[in-house]
Amino acid sequence: MTFDLPCTDADSQARRGRLATRRGVIETPAFMPVGTQGTVKAMLPEALKEIGAQILLGNTYHLFLRPGHERIARLGGLHRFMNWERPILTDSGGFQVFSLGKLRKIDEDGVRFQSHLDGSAQVLTPESSIAIQQALDSDIIMVFDECIPYPASRDYVISSTERSMRWAARCKAAHQADGSALFGIVQGGMHEDLRRKSADDLQTIGFDGYAIGGLSVGEEAQLMYEVMDYTLPHLPTDHPRYVMGVGTPENLVEGVRRGVDMFDCVMPTRNARNGVLFTSFGKISIKQARYQDDEGPIDPDCDCYVCRHYSRAYLRHLFQSNEILSSMLNTHHNLFYYLQLMRTMRQALEQGTFGDFYRDFYRRRENGDTLES
Amino acid sequence: MTFDLPCTDADSQARRGRLATRRGVIETPAFMPVGTQGTVKAMLPEALKEIGAQILLGNTYHLFLRPGHERIARLGGLHRFMNWERPILTDSGGFQVFSLGKLRKIDEDGVRFQSHLDGSAQVLTPESSIAIQQALDSDIIMVFDECIPYPASRDYVISSTERSMRWAARCKAAHQADGSALFGIVQGGMHEDLRRKSADDLQTIGFDGYAIGGLSVGEEAQLMYEVMDYTLPHLPTDHPRYVMGVGTPENLVEGVRRGVDMFDCVMPTRNARNGVLFTSFGKISIKQARYQDDEGPIDPDCDCYVCRHYSRAYLRHLFQSNEILSSMLNTHHNLFYYLQLMRTMRQALEQGTFGDFYRDFYRRRENGDTLES
Repeated sequence: MTFDLPCTDADSQARRGRLATRRGVIETPAFMPVGTQGTVKAMLPEALKEIGAQILLGNTYHLFLRPGHERIARLGGLHRFMNWERPILTDSGGFQVFSLGKLRKIDEDGVRFQSHLDGSAQVLTPESSIAIQQALDSDIIMVFDECIPYPASRDYVISSTERSMRWAARCKAAHQADGSALFGIVQGGMHEDLRRKSADDLQTIGFDGYAIGGLSVGEEAQLMYEVMDYTLPHLPTDHPRYVMGVGTPENLVEGVRRGVDMFDCVMPTRNARNGVLFTSFGKISIKQARYQDDEGPIDPDCDCYVCRHYSRAYLRHLFQSNEILSSMLNTHHNLFYYLQLMRTMRQALEQGTFGDFYRDFYRRRENGDTLES
Repeated sequence: MTFDLPCTDADSQARRGRLATRRGVIETPAFMPVGTQGTVKAMLPEALKEIGAQILLGNTYHLFLRPGHERIARLGGLHRFMNWERPILTDSGGFQVFSLGKLRKIDEDGVRFQSHLDGSAQVLTPESSIAIQQALDSDIIMVFDECIPYPASRDYVISSTERSMRWAARCKAAHQADGSALFGIVQGGMHEDLRRKSADDLQTIGFDGYAIGGLSVGEEAQLMYEVMDYTLPHLPTDHPRYVMGVGTPENLVEGVRRGVDMFDCVMPTRNARNGVLFTSFGKISIKQARYQDDEGPIDPDCDCYVCRHYSRAYLRHLFQSNEILSSMLNTHHNLFYYLQLMRTMRQALEQGTFGDFYRDFYRRRENGDTLES
C-alpha cells in the first residue's frame, strides 16, 4: 500500500491524498459506506459504484458469527461473496464485542462473549481477529482494540489503552503478508497525554495507517474536535489517518479541515431507513405531513438519481407505507450526499479553494434553517 | 387502444398479440408485475424496464386510501408519481374491498367499508372506482365488481354476478373518454352457464378488453383450467383477454395455451420476500441450510443480473440476515423469471414452436424434481 499527498491546504491541515491498495486507488479524503453483514443495506453494489463509493467497510463481528469467515473464504472471499471488487476495510470486531455489555468478559488474552444471534459462547483475540479479517480477504485490516466508553475514569482509560497497545503489537505480529494493509488505532479517551502516548506507541510498532478510535461515543462535537486537534499532530503525515465511526456532515468537514483522510459511519444509511435525509441546507424528516403534497426533490441542489426522478411527496408516501423502495431511495440519496460532499472537498483542495468551500458549507445550512423553519 | 394478433398457434388456442395503448405497445401474452402502493415492492422502475416489464398493475383500493387519488392527480398522475412512463393497468378496488370480510357491507349502490389503515368509513361505487382510476391516469381501467369467494352457493353466485354486470354497465357509463381503455370482468363462479351468460352480458355492454375474474381464489388448478376452457370461447377473439390474479408459472403456460393474453399476480414478488425462488426446474426455498455453501446461481439456465453475480450461499445469507438486499435480489430474479417465461412463449408462438416449448417446460421441471430431491 502506498499513500501520496498531491496537495495540502495552505490555511488548514486539510490534505488531498491518494491511497493505493492492492484492489485499487482510494482518493482521499474519503467516506466509506458501511456494509455490516456483507451488504450496504438496501443498495446494489453497482449503485454504490455509480455514486462513487471507492471502498466499503465490512464488520468482522457480524461476518464471523454469520455466515462465518471460513465459509466466506471457501466461497472465494468477501469481495466475490458480495459482488464488490473494489477495496474493503474491515473493522476488528472490537467495537461490536465491547458493545455487548454484560454478555462479554475481557482479559489479557482477548474477549469472551455470547453471540447476539444464538447466545453461543465465542472468543475474539487479537490473533483471531486478524485471522478472520485475512480469511475475509480484507484489503485494510484494523487492529483489535477496546473502544472505551464515555465517560470513563482516567484509570480505566489508562489500563484499557495500555492493553489495546499490547494487543496492537500482537496484531502486527499475527498479520500475514498477503498484500493487505494493517492500521493501528489510537485510543486514550478524552485525555491529551494518553492519546499522545497511544499515538507514539503505535508508531513504535509501525502500521500502514493510523486510526483514531473511541470517538462518536456520546461526547459533544466540540470535545471530538479537541481530541482530533491534539491527536492528529502526533500521527505521521505520510500515512493515512482514519477517524472511526464518524459522523455527521459537519463532523466530516471539521475532520477534513483537521487533516483526517478517511471516515466511516452508519449515519447516512441508518438515517435513510428512518426517513431522515441529508441536504445542502441540513437534515429533513421525510415522514412529516408538510411534504405530502411537495412536488420538489429532496434537495434542489442535488443531482442524484433520487432527486432527479422523485418528489418529496412520493418519498413521504413510500415511508408512510413502509415500502422497501423507501429504504432503497433514501439510502441512495444519503450516500450520494456523503460521497458528493467528499468529492466537493477533494476538488476544493485541488483548486486551493477549501476555505471558500468551508464558509459556503455553513452558509447554506444557515439559510436552510430559515427556509425550513 | 388497438389489439392485433400477428400469429396464433396451430395446435392450441395460444395467441401472439400486440396491444397498443396510449402509453405504448404491450406484446402479449404478457405478465404484469403488481405495484400495489405505487411501487413494485423492492424494485426500481429502471430495473423493471431492464428486465422487460411492459406494464404494471396499480391497486385502486390502496392508492385511494393512501396517499389518495386526488393527491396523486395533483402531483401529475400515478406515472409521474412513481417514475414509470410505460402503461399502467389499475384494478377496481373490488378485490381488496371484498377481502375485508366483516369490515364491509354491499348494497346495490356499492360497498361501504372500513379502511384497514385507520378504520375510517369509506365507500366505493362503480362510479367512484372509475373516477379514482381516471384520476390516477390509468391506461387500462377495470370495472368495479365482486370477486366471488370459493366455494359459494349457486344462488349467491347468480345474484352477485348479476349485480356485477349491472355495475359493469354503470362503469361503462361513468368512464370518461380520455384515451384510457376499459375492461369488463367475467364472473359466474365455477358454473359454465353463469360464466357464459356473464361473458355475453359484458359483450352486450361492450368493452375494450375482457377479463376473467374470480379465479385463483382457492380452487384446484384443474378447476381453474376448466373455467378457462369453457369461458374463453365465449370471449371475442379480437379483444385482449386477461385472467386476473393468476398465477404460478404452470398457470401462465396453461392460460396462454388456452388463449389468455394478460396475467398479473403477486406470486413472484411476494414469494421473493419469503425466500421462494422460481427456476426452470421448479421452486426452491433459499432459506434451506443445503444452500449455505452452494457457490452456484439460483438457476444455471437463468441469465438475469442476480444469477450472473450472486451465489445461492450469498442469497441464503442475506435471507437469514433479514437484509433488504435479500428482497431486492430475490424479487429481481423472480420477476425476470416470469417475464422471461412470457418472452419465451411469445418467441415460440412467433416461430411456430409453442408445442415444443410446452413439452420442454414440463420436462425440465420433472428433471428438476430429481435434481433437487
